[in-house]
Amino acid sequence: MPQFLSTTDPDFESAFQALLGAKREDSPDVDAVVADIIADVRARGDAAVLELTAKFDRLDLDATGLRFSDEEIDAYCAQVSDEDRAALELAAARIRAYHERQIPEDAMWTDEAGAQLGWRWTPVSAAGLYVPGGIATYPSSVLMNAVPAKVAGVGRLAMVVPTPDGAVNPLVLLAARIAGVDEVYRIGGAQAVAALAYGTDTIAPVDKITGPGNAFVAAAKRRVFGKVGIDMIAGPSEILVIADKDNDPDWIALDLLSQAEHDESAQSILITDDVAFGQAVADAVEARLQTLERRAVAGPSWRDYGAIITVEDMAQAVELSDRIAPEHLELCVADADGLAAQITHAGAIFIGAWTPEAIGDYVGGPNHVLPTARSARFSSGLSVMDFVKRTTLARMSPEALAAIGPSAERLAISESLEAHGLSVRARLDRLNRD
Amino acid sequence: MPQFLSTTDPDFESAFQALLGAKREDSPDVDAVVADIIADVRARGDAAVLELTAKFDRLDLDATGLRFSDEEIDAYCAQVSDEDRAALELAAARIRAYHERQIPEDAMWTDEAGAQLGWRWTPVSAAGLYVPGGIATYPSSVLMNAVPAKVAGVGRLAMVVPTPDGAVNPLVLLAARIAGVDEVYRIGGAQAVAALAYGTDTIAPVDKITGPGNAFVAAAKRRVFGKVGIDMIAGPSEILVIADKDNDPDWIALDLLSQAEHDESAQSILITDDVAFGQAVADAVEARLQTLERRAVAGPSWRDYGAIITVEDMAQAVELSDRIAPEHLELCVADADGLAAQITHAGAIFIGAWTPEAIGDYVGGPNHVLPTARSARFSSGLSVMDFVKRTTLARMSPEALAAIGPSAERLAISESLEAHGLSVRARLDRLNRD
Repeated sequence: MPQFLSTTDPDFESAFQALLGAKREDSPDVDAVVADIIADVRARGDAAVLELTAKFDRLDLDATGLRFSDEEIDAYCAQVSDEDRAALELAAARIRAYHERQIPEDAMWTDEAGAQLGWRWTPVSAAGLYVPGGIATYPSSVLMNAVPAKVAGVGRLAMVVPTPDGAVNPLVLLAARIAGVDEVYRIGGAQAVAALAYGTDTIAPVDKITGPGNAFVAAAKRRVFGKVGIDMIAGPSEILVIADKDNDPDWIALDLLSQAEHDESAQSILITDDVAFGQAVADAVEARLQTLERRAVAGPSWRDYGAIITVEDMAQAVELSDRIAPEHLELCVADADGLAAQITHAGAIFIGAWTPEAIGDYVGGPNHVLPTARSARFSSGLSVMDFVKRTTLARMSPEALAAIGPSAERLAISESLEAHGLSVRARLDRLNRD
Repeated sequence: MPQFLSTTDPDFESAFQALLGAKREDSPDVDAVVADIIADVRARGDAAVLELTAKFDRLDLDATGLRFSDEEIDAYCAQVSDEDRAALELAAARIRAYHERQIPEDAMWTDEAGAQLGWRWTPVSAAGLYVPGGIATYPSSVLMNAVPAKVAGVGRLAMVVPTPDGAVNPLVLLAARIAGVDEVYRIGGAQAVAALAYGTDTIAPVDKITGPGNAFVAAAKRRVFGKVGIDMIAGPSEILVIADKDNDPDWIALDLLSQAEHDESAQSILITDDVAFGQAVADAVEARLQTLERRAVAGPSWRDYGAIITVEDMAQAVELSDRIAPEHLELCVADADGLAAQITHAGAIFIGAWTPEAIGDYVGGPNHVLPTARSARFSSGLSVMDFVKRTTLARMSPEALAAIGPSAERLAISESLEAHGLSVRARLDRLNRD
């Protein structure tokens, strides 16, 4: 059974704090292993990558076999059913349309001092996309990472996906093709991250690496950060549903289970203002857990980390939600728009009972790579902004320098940075002479 | 003497690679010490902070003394000269005006499927600003961090600044007041970062920490990342000047020295298409180094890491500049605007000989916290965007769900995530029944 809490319980605050602070993830200490792998790939390049792939994926390749050829990709894509292809194409088109609105604008203006100021956005030149192999191989994640990169204008997008024992998910390759991925390599683990960051004879280095992965991949991304950019290190998935009694308990149960089935460490929380409705949802979850294909995953997640919290009113629900800062927030209440407007911290909000979170995982349009573990307090989901960078621009006229230069000189002197001051003074002296 | 390179040298490529790869920073391994300090502050709160402040800053305080009172700040601010105050106020006003243009816009639209989609930006609730004490205590950095935070709408901005032996820079406190900093604590080092991240009885925790610091501060920021957001970990400063022969060699020399004087690890590079001009700049640097106040810092930086590169034409200069991806790029050439338009990777561009980089450090308006060590390939300078986060929004009508839901269900099934599919199917079935 999940936890049942009520804000009227005398010990609610401590129970809620415990829920917030629950450590849901084992972090095996793989850092030393990963450091060795990265050093090996830096030193020996392709040879190291090939050896490690033989060892971990039981796959004997030579350097020319590291990359999927166009013909191989064609052949795998041909295995995909028309229905699956159409669904992927609809998803890609909707994700593309949403993310195209995120392309930031350049600016340049002249202010009252006569200074021309502005900025310019440019895409990252080359990006790498990590795609997990094995059970958690999600074509939707390929779209969610690759489409924003291509919308941003990334020129070269290289994807890595391990193929243990040679197993390939054709949908992953089709998603890569639909999204415009330029290169696909059949490697994974820390060795793939190292190859993307430092390059080998076969794989040119990239500037930024995104995409989910296991503890080895996460540790490798942390280690190469600085040499290249990385996206966030995601934790287990979470959903918070705020629902009143005028909902079908089975819908809400399925929404909670759609997070729980991801991972035994996932967390699903319901907040409701009706204690009987909360119990009805709990019953519906139990009923669905009898038959759910992934009940061996969803069951432990729900029992260990699930919670149903009863509040006195929706104002309390908003307050608790902002303390949780959920990755996914579903609002199944009468005035869902009004409640959404009151929320400050959430990765993504799904407004109204006709918007199950699963829509956002696939075809809604917004990105499904979202901040976990309360990091929505300070960070955002993946977007076009992760694949562009800003160069600030400034151009002083002699008049502008005359107007603001003396203040720069004064501050430089106050900071004991004489050359800073002199670089301004030398120019001001010329103006005064002319 | 700095290095002299020319793209016509037979060994240019290897020499340029060596210049790019030069490891300019000692990274003392302080991680174990920092881990202990953070654990201590988490366990003992104020008591640990007070003990560590007594030990490292030789300052005996009690908990009530950790925070500067308004009266204390008043008294320090009163020590600042009118001229320095006016310069700080001009700088703050210009930085504020520039950053106000960065406030991102919310969006909400309805697409052809009938789905309402959009996003909303909200400020980080509470941010912490680290300000170094000792020699490198820069009021300009207070403005560059605090003004964007306040422009973003951060409600609570807490600043920490160590005051070794009780020494306080009044300009730092005045900059904090002008920028609207809400709380100032006289603490520093890893203990200050830990206090901001985890909170103590006296210091409430924040959601994001920005600002420069030494190796201990950098290691502490890396360790608390995830619990809170952090800004980039900055390396030593760099400038690249591209200049033709129609420049005053002394101006360019001073611009190069204004980076070199920051730090012995700073790097100043000149690219020119005129070998004689390059020599003239080298001579001018040597002449200025005879008398420069900070010659003991600027001299080693210039000798160890400085370089003058002669190119055959400005197209080569652009190519090399993008490989360097400089933090600061100054363009002192006839068609500076034209050259600026060709640059892809740079933190900030200073266009034309009347725009010395020092203007950007203080009063230009753009931020002076910029990506170092080639990270302009994938990251941007500090901005309002560092203090806001985006919540994506989606609201399906029943019709929209009917239109796109089946594709979501199909993809869920292909990923073996049954509950995802069922959460959509349950709603579609209701529609079909109704």
